[in-house]
Amino acid sequence: MRVKDLGEFPLIERLRQITSVEHADIVVGIGDDVAVMNDGSPQGYLLATVDSMVEDVHFLRDLTTPEQLGRRALAINLSDIAAMGGLAQFALVALVLPDNTDVPWIEGMYRGMQKEAARAGVAVVGGNVTSSPATFSIHITVLGRVQPEHLLLRSGARPGDRILVTGSLGSANAGLRLARATRERPGWDARLRPAERQALLEHYLTPTPRLHEATAIAKTGGATAMIDISDGLSSDLGHICEQSQVGAHIHAAHLPISDAAQQVATALVLPPEPLALTGGDDYELCFTVAPDRVDAIRVAVGQATGTPLTDIGEILPAAQGRLLTLPDGREVSLEASGWQHFRSEA
Amino acid sequence: MRVKDLGEFPLIERLRQITSVEHADIVVGIGDDVAVMNDGSPQGYLLATVDSMVEDVHFLRDLTTPEQLGRRALAINLSDIAAMGGLAQFALVALVLPDNTDVPWIEGMYRGMQKEAARAGVAVVGGNVTSSPATFSIHITVLGRVQPEHLLLRSGARPGDRILVTGSLGSANAGLRLARATRERPGWDARLRPAERQALLEHYLTPTPRLHEATAIAKTGGATAMIDISDGLSSDLGHICEQSQVGAHIHAAHLPISDAAQQVATALVLPPEPLALTGGDDYELCFTVAPDRVDAIRVAVGQATGTPLTDIGEILPAAQGRLLTLPDGREVSLEASGWQHFRSEA
Repeated sequence: MRVKDLGEFPLIERLRQITSVEHADIVVGIGDDVAVMNDGSPQGYLLATVDSMVEDVHFLRDLTTPEQLGRRALAINLSDIAAMGGLAQFALVALVLPDNTDVPWIEGMYRGMQKEAARAGVAVVGGNVTSSPATFSIHITVLGRVQPEHLLLRSGARPGDRILVTGSLGSANAGLRLARATRERPGWDARLRPAERQALLEHYLTPTPRLHEATAIAKTGGATAMIDISDGLSSDLGHICEQSQVGAHIHAAHLPISDAAQQVATALVLPPEPLALTGGDDYELCFTVAPDRVDAIRVAVGQATGTPLTDIGEILPAAQGRLLTLPDGREVSLEASGWQHFRSEA
Repeated sequence: MRVKDLGEFPLIERLRQITSVEHADIVVGIGDDVAVMNDGSPQGYLLATVDSMVEDVHFLRDLTTPEQLGRRALAINLSDIAAMGGLAQFALVALVLPDNTDVPWIEGMYRGMQKEAARAGVAVVGGNVTSSPATFSIHITVLGRVQPEHLLLRSGARPGDRILVTGSLGSANAGLRLARATRERPGWDARLRPAERQALLEHYLTPTPRLHEATAIAKTGGATAMIDISDGLSSDLGHICEQSQVGAHIHAAHLPISDAAQQVATALVLPPEPLALTGGDDYELCFTVAPDRVDAIRVAVGQATGTPLTDIGEILPAAQGRLLTLPDGREVSLEASGWQHFRSEA
């Protein structure tokens, strides 16, 4: 059997079974984005996460500056640590480079990475450089800490919890679609000002992880589960549902779709909701919270960061599945919430 | 400028300068194989290292079983942690896989990795799986701990120190040369029994890092610097010289060249010394120690592990450079200790 026949998550489950060990110090092992270890430090649990960016899979060299790539490569890891309620501290960087890679290009990437590291108070402490026959890739490990009482897993959501997201959704996917449309149809005009177009693309290329928002949410002690939206809301909320063994109900009409995503969707003659539901790359936070704690969290996050929170639905018992109410009132499966449902409205 | 024009170590130095920060918690940052952080844990300093293995650069799929590859990929990281005097605890594994990779092949690799992890008391706690357009690669981060008084860096060697190595050298490179010769010249016969041939190849494919020896050496408190021999003795001792700002003098006649390396060298009509000096991949330890502490360390390592230590030379003041006395008494530069010097004896 080939990897493409099995799929990523079933493969990870098989590998998890091979490496599974009983270990008193492991709070969370394989299966989450971040490993959590109890090493007796007064600073709390140790957090560790690793993410890879491979050329032509996760980025296109002609679409990104090296600075943007460096920022993004670190930011996606910082977002994972933040979504556990933790603070990132250290990073290790493994570079795989074709011999003919431009040195200034790599230096630019490191400057971008260092900018993001400095912003988050993270130190790049080590790494490895190796050559590659063809493809460039970068693999960043980030270590952090979380106080046990602030640790937020994917497994804590309970039926009745409200589902909230930070900020707005869809801009990153809108930026990606805009870039693709512009490239595939030169001269095509989305009726966006150059500054708007640039802002959208940057939202995709250099996401700003919600570090302060995550800390504020974790400190309230009111959230029951949290994840960062990297693969898309429906997929990432799906991880919470799987690991908490619950269902969920989302209202498409309540999604905080960004103005920019609305504009791009209009220009591309597409419904905007899928940009927010399945687009991914926004790196907003999705979290669950008991109904009586929603207001307190909203106030805490608002005071600490000014970032709005939106209530988009509720956690259901597992037996009720994962549901989406479309803007026209029809109820569909959240897993199958692709373009076709929204298209059929038109 | 391209990476191939600049070279690996100058590139790392440039990247180190870009990411350099003052940080009270960083004991050792970029430039060593392992980062060392003081995170206030009662378990000692936190250690973190990452290493990459790229198909067709670090391994050939037709020369290794997946189990061997998995063992090796983890072992080289465990060796790095041990060479700091530390104990490895946790590993994270980033896999980059072409979609058509065989699932049983990956599972075999994980079984090999798990075997090595279990042997060393290490738990695989997380990772990442991503697709690749073509090349397979694996990137392992290992976390460990070291008591501050056992920490051994590359920077502690002092003029007058003796230079010692564990075990014997040359087998791994002999195994690699044997495999290449057999492949390039089918029917070629090194006059080795199949069991000897197999043992040599395994020495290269699945090195056994000197974990217990490293611990025993560190616990004596007598060593001043240590490194594992991955790139080859002359190169790795060179790292100690650079970071300790010292010179060194090695006696080729004192090198503990393995019997197997001697045999393969004879069969290939090559002098054996370069297999031990520049071959690499043996994962023995090279360390420095004050002359009056040599006997105590020899006894401690012998009692704890039975592994012999060999005194191969001494640390010099930096101004005297890095020297090698050949078996015929000629003195040459250690950096230029390639085949040509040894060939000219014949």
